[in-house]
Amino acid sequence: MTEFHELSALEASAKIKSGDLTAEALMRSCFERIDERDKLVGAWSYLDKDKAISEAIKSDKAGNPGRLGGLPVAVKDIMDTDDMPTTYGSTIYGNHQPSEDADCVKNVRTNGGIIIGKTVTTEFAWRNPGKTRNPNNAKHTPGGSSSGSAAGVADMQVPLAFGTQTAGSVIRPAAYCGVVGYKPTFGTHDRKGVKELSNYLDTVGTFARDVADVSLFDYALRGQSCPNLADYDNQPPVIGLMIPFSIEASKDALLAYENVYKKAEKAGASLVDIPSSMKFESLADLQTVIMTGDAGASLSWEYEHHPERLTRFYRDSIAIGKAISESALKNAKQLADDARKREASIFEKVDILLTLPASGEAPEGIDFTGDPLFNRVWTLLGWPCINVPAGVGSRRLPLGVQVVGSAGQDASALAAAAWLEKVLGNS
Amino acid sequence: MTEFHELSALEASAKIKSGDLTAEALMRSCFERIDERDKLVGAWSYLDKDKAISEAIKSDKAGNPGRLGGLPVAVKDIMDTDDMPTTYGSTIYGNHQPSEDADCVKNVRTNGGIIIGKTVTTEFAWRNPGKTRNPNNAKHTPGGSSSGSAAGVADMQVPLAFGTQTAGSVIRPAAYCGVVGYKPTFGTHDRKGVKELSNYLDTVGTFARDVADVSLFDYALRGQSCPNLADYDNQPPVIGLMIPFSIEASKDALLAYENVYKKAEKAGASLVDIPSSMKFESLADLQTVIMTGDAGASLSWEYEHHPERLTRFYRDSIAIGKAISESALKNAKQLADDARKREASIFEKVDILLTLPASGEAPEGIDFTGDPLFNRVWTLLGWPCINVPAGVGSRRLPLGVQVVGSAGQDASALAAAAWLEKVLGNS
Repeated sequence: MTEFHELSALEASAKIKSGDLTAEALMRSCFERIDERDKLVGAWSYLDKDKAISEAIKSDKAGNPGRLGGLPVAVKDIMDTDDMPTTYGSTIYGNHQPSEDADCVKNVRTNGGIIIGKTVTTEFAWRNPGKTRNPNNAKHTPGGSSSGSAAGVADMQVPLAFGTQTAGSVIRPAAYCGVVGYKPTFGTHDRKGVKELSNYLDTVGTFARDVADVSLFDYALRGQSCPNLADYDNQPPVIGLMIPFSIEASKDALLAYENVYKKAEKAGASLVDIPSSMKFESLADLQTVIMTGDAGASLSWEYEHHPERLTRFYRDSIAIGKAISESALKNAKQLADDARKREASIFEKVDILLTLPASGEAPEGIDFTGDPLFNRVWTLLGWPCINVPAGVGSRRLPLGVQVVGSAGQDASALAAAAWLEKVLGNS
Repeated sequence: MTEFHELSALEASAKIKSGDLTAEALMRSCFERIDERDKLVGAWSYLDKDKAISEAIKSDKAGNPGRLGGLPVAVKDIMDTDDMPTTYGSTIYGNHQPSEDADCVKNVRTNGGIIIGKTVTTEFAWRNPGKTRNPNNAKHTPGGSSSGSAAGVADMQVPLAFGTQTAGSVIRPAAYCGVVGYKPTFGTHDRKGVKELSNYLDTVGTFARDVADVSLFDYALRGQSCPNLADYDNQPPVIGLMIPFSIEASKDALLAYENVYKKAEKAGASLVDIPSSMKFESLADLQTVIMTGDAGASLSWEYEHHPERLTRFYRDSIAIGKAISESALKNAKQLADDARKREASIFEKVDILLTLPASGEAPEGIDFTGDPLFNRVWTLLGWPCINVPAGVGSRRLPLGVQVVGSAGQDASALAAAAWLEKVLGNS
């Protein structure tokens, strides 16, 4: 029998609406799973079981209103919560209690979702991991920076979780943990109350165990119902095959990728080869300049007032970021703006791009959350990205493919990802 | 019986001068050792045995003139040689044959030394290691960037070798491999023909198996005879104990350090505790800004013309370095100039500083050459630094202490290091 905590958000929501499940029972089941697994996985930086259960009871009493009515939601600890401490993964903020929820957290509550706790993030959502381990194999990293959110969802401790992505912090951990990660088009969600790393790049994203769930979650935050995910059922998508940095990809990852596009072709998709280029790949350099320059400004206060509590990587990166001139940073952003316009023409002949979410399986060890190289260009371009799990590699760890859509065409990208999910037999 | 290749440079030199050893026999012995060990250690990027032996024969015939007469010398592959290819650790320069020797290489030849080959350097003497392994345990890094030079000397393949240091590229590999490394005062040796990384920081240094040998070697390059290393024999030095970033040091390293200063005190040295400070340690941030900014200029040609042959670390670092404004870089160098003057007062009350050369033993694996954190501030200050081996740690790998002298007071720093060597029973 499926335990409640194993239900997808949509399944749980349907059962709650039909009266077959209470928010309280669902929440208790999630906490049973957490109690059983938390020592091994370490997904959480803060949990308040009593409060979450009492909120679930209250939601049940009210009839679980809202698009996320009665559903448990995990919040990455880079986002402010008015009822739970928020550390941003830094000891500087070890006792920090924000007075207000981040906007995206408010949206969860407005839509009836229940905040179950805060998930582990790397320091300021960049480097220097926390305690979280990959639930598929605890010797391996879950990826980062949204480490706890990806691991908690993969481990069936919670159906829905928030992430943020500045380089590869949603898509990479989703791929490493074997869940669906969704970074919407840049600018989709307001970032008020989300600790800023780069104003030009930071994007609020979501994790769940299937495409329908991230769609439900993300569109609820927009105040909209889930888009139609069956769009490609009768007319399969035109898929552009493009792998920047393919030389860095593992054999396993490339084999899994090939398996996916062959199945897609067999199911009726049209495939179009789109070669990468040095010019296109050089956008990763631009992403680094912007991320570093912006971080030099956004973390300037921490650098000036608490240098002793910043790890070395931050000390160095912020010092360098501060030395990047305003005109060089402005110029880099202008080049990125130009690229966002110029490269949009890729989608004239394809519905979506299919690429890799990471170089391969999660690396061994938890000191390094892996390389975000396969995400950086897409984040710079601001395009919607979805990780779709695609089997396992030679170490029995998850692999994935990344669906990339045109800016603003999130519904189409999600529908294509849902179509692929069906073709792969994921759902 | 001691094999010829095991002799120190001074011992070999004495035997050559007395007629008990020929340069040819010494060179043949070194190559026997290399042939036996090169597959394991991988210290060399280029060797020409026939040429080296024929030069040794020629030197014997001429009576082995010069301060380095008949001695084999290894050249880090970041330095130009007119008779051997020079790759700077980069595939961009895979077939590069300079038309002229670097000035320091010329000085070796002028002084009768024989260039035995080129040693492995990391890419452009920064990150991304070559094939070299730690001769004490091949599973561990030898450190870098002067990887091959440190490993070759430690493995008794060659008595003398060149290094360069911009962050910690001489002292750290010396510590990891268990040899003496010497970075003289900034500006001591002309860097013409040495691939530039940072004009403000790059320093030509040397490796040998004892302090007398690095002194012989370095001062021969200056056209001077070795300074008096017995200066502290009757009047032991006043030693300042100072460990910036001590929180990053391993227990092993701190125990070895304690052992050294206690022995020094017992042997008559006066000890003065000098606390580190956040302000002092923030000079490491300045070092990063200057190194990155300078690298953005010095490697600009490679970035523009061969981006596909630069590893990711370089692509990112050069892109960031190019975005650092001239005024920010100038300002950073002004702050460093000020620090060089201001911090000199430390030596008003001590002869030398005793500190750590690295956080501990060489890390496992050869993909990362270890953290230069314990070297960066001293390199920024331009002060002379010497690694003196100081036993082994819990993994049976070498540890060391770092002697730091006042700018220009290299002879005193070397004499203190030689005194410590005696106290520790290294010589």
